[in-house]
Amino acid sequence: MAYHEVTMNVRHDRIARVQARLREEGLLALMVLTHDDYRYLFGEDRFQPRALIPVEGPPTIIAFTGEEPEVRAALAAQGGGEVRVFGSVGGQIHDVVGLLRDLARRVGAPPGSRPKVGVQKWFETPAFLLDMFAQVNPGIEVVSSDPVMDPLRMVKDAGELALMAEAQRIAGLGMDRARELLRPGVAAAEIATEVAYAMGRAGAEGTSTPIFVSFGVETCMLHGRVSAAPLAPGELAVIDLTPRVEGYNANLARTFVLGAPDARQRQLLDAYAALIPPVRDALRPGATVAGLDAIVGRVLAEHGLAQHQVKGIGHGLGLRFEETPASTIIPPHRHVPLLADMAMTIGHTVVAVPGFGGVRHEDVYRVTPAGGVPLHPYPIDPVVGLG
Amino acid sequence: MAYHEVTMNVRHDRIARVQARLREEGLLALMVLTHDDYRYLFGEDRFQPRALIPVEGPPTIIAFTGEEPEVRAALAAQGGGEVRVFGSVGGQIHDVVGLLRDLARRVGAPPGSRPKVGVQKWFETPAFLLDMFAQVNPGIEVVSSDPVMDPLRMVKDAGELALMAEAQRIAGLGMDRARELLRPGVAAAEIATEVAYAMGRAGAEGTSTPIFVSFGVETCMLHGRVSAAPLAPGELAVIDLTPRVEGYNANLARTFVLGAPDARQRQLLDAYAALIPPVRDALRPGATVAGLDAIVGRVLAEHGLAQHQVKGIGHGLGLRFEETPASTIIPPHRHVPLLADMAMTIGHTVVAVPGFGGVRHEDVYRVTPAGGVPLHPYPIDPVVGLG
Repeated sequence: MAYHEVTMNVRHDRIARVQARLREEGLLALMVLTHDDYRYLFGEDRFQPRALIPVEGPPTIIAFTGEEPEVRAALAAQGGGEVRVFGSVGGQIHDVVGLLRDLARRVGAPPGSRPKVGVQKWFETPAFLLDMFAQVNPGIEVVSSDPVMDPLRMVKDAGELALMAEAQRIAGLGMDRARELLRPGVAAAEIATEVAYAMGRAGAEGTSTPIFVSFGVETCMLHGRVSAAPLAPGELAVIDLTPRVEGYNANLARTFVLGAPDARQRQLLDAYAALIPPVRDALRPGATVAGLDAIVGRVLAEHGLAQHQVKGIGHGLGLRFEETPASTIIPPHRHVPLLADMAMTIGHTVVAVPGFGGVRHEDVYRVTPAGGVPLHPYPIDPVVGLG
Repeated sequence: MAYHEVTMNVRHDRIARVQARLREEGLLALMVLTHDDYRYLFGEDRFQPRALIPVEGPPTIIAFTGEEPEVRAALAAQGGGEVRVFGSVGGQIHDVVGLLRDLARRVGAPPGSRPKVGVQKWFETPAFLLDMFAQVNPGIEVVSSDPVMDPLRMVKDAGELALMAEAQRIAGLGMDRARELLRPGVAAAEIATEVAYAMGRAGAEGTSTPIFVSFGVETCMLHGRVSAAPLAPGELAVIDLTPRVEGYNANLARTFVLGAPDARQRQLLDAYAALIPPVRDALRPGATVAGLDAIVGRVLAEHGLAQHQVKGIGHGLGLRFEETPASTIIPPHRHVPLLADMAMTIGHTVVAVPGFGGVRHEDVYRVTPAGGVPLHPYPIDPVVGLG
């Protein structure tokens, strides 16, 4: 079993780039409240990831008092550099007030001005922490950290791509196991349990979403669920796997049909298989999700399924399961130009006939001038025998 | 394998109680954005749980267009009652604007008044959704839904307690498996993978936190991690398990020592074992976490560990992993009086000597006039042989 958990590894190179971006955007600091930002900058994870990256000077890790010696030892062991550790549960946010006030004075923010602090505002940012922060820091304006972090996070370096390829390889092992188990009467929960085990033994840290195993009409669902009813002959099954390696996410979805597909299932399967190659070919620097969706629209129209298109065929991913562009969450992301060495999925949205079923095959690609290159190829082979 | 996923089961009884509380608190509606509230009211789960409970009239489920027939079929199959389904990705929040405006008119809110809508503001509420909501609904004041929901959610009915006891039983099976695997050189990741598998096969839906398997000095951590270094003879190991059954959480933590404990480990283990019985005895209606912490403080002082007390010995739980009172998140909860038939943990906070290690044994109890009754007892037996 290959396991990838690592101890602290402060990325001073990345911190310096964050500080340069903070200066360019006129922000006083980046407030880290989420696992992905914390891991990106400190190379480890903890249950409550809290840190402050000031526009100048050393970063501060905010840790529970009991963890302070361990954090200091970890920092020392890896050559550390200066990092401050604050220990206080409950008072953490208050500690930050003083830090920010000192910082504003140090950088010469005019008295009475309202300095800006960047915070990630996606799914994982606890709303109550932002509320609490605003209450105790009325003199600070909290803005989205995306303009600071997106230029860094969107483009993956070789190490990041290698971890993501490994995660995608593990997702393939999970999908192999799922496919083996597809038979009449199997419970979706059994598949989910066995797939999680197979991926965990192969080195996954867990998954970034639940493992989705949807049968029958529930294959229409936007993401999926673990279906309650057992799989019946002739039904569609959508399996969606998101194992993580050192925090980096995979995304592999496949649709299967138990037995020979009927005409409508065949139509959906053929259309989805047909849309992938042209979208993959278009996955080049400068492309946009809006442009990719236009290609999808043409293919679906050729298959008589134009009315069932859901926009947003792909999204970025990395340390966060959905990263910019994530157009089904943030509509303006439809027009963000892709960059070389971004990691993008194709296959995010289901093509579903409501009340009947849906099809979706999703993989992760590296954006290159020659089109998308799969991080780890996995076959599309949807028909499962009844035997 | 017992699997508990259920299809939709609209709890009209609970919805009526929410509406009565909305009236008492002067709120226009409850906006549901989290799995726990959604599951409590609709008896199922979906990836993006979104619903609106108006102060009067039928609730609205906001679902993806492709899911609408499935939602309607599920509602019909269980006798449904009137529920509206909105289908639109991205525009969901906008749909809600019109609904709220109509509702304000219907209940006769004075023009120009700023009606209040309750939203849960804990860890799981996506900050960006609240931001978006505030932007498109400037005429609405968003307030915490805790005053509406806490009176309902804090006290568990018999069905809820049965599900929580089952989850706690499954956690015990996971802990049995973990204990079997404790030996010199074992990887924390192997234990986490095997424990997840054992709990999944026993019927767990997953866990509400990662499975924490912390070794050595990392047993000091506030919650825990999956340690990178293998277990060495003489080290402490803290294992913390949070399997879910139909959304209801368990919480079982145990500390082990590999081989004979040294004097300091023995001191920590003895102190933790000694604090549990008096706290359990005090777990009665009217008690507060502050009062329980005072008992803990006395026991720790008797063991020479007073300086290492971390306040917040227990927390509520149910469909959310931490529910009111959750004093390490929301300090005023220290003074919330407990009610009969609440589910409370004892053992939330670690007693740790920073830089050395910590001890924690956590279980879930029902609050009764005779003190805490464990939902499913599990032995405290920390010394694991080296053989």
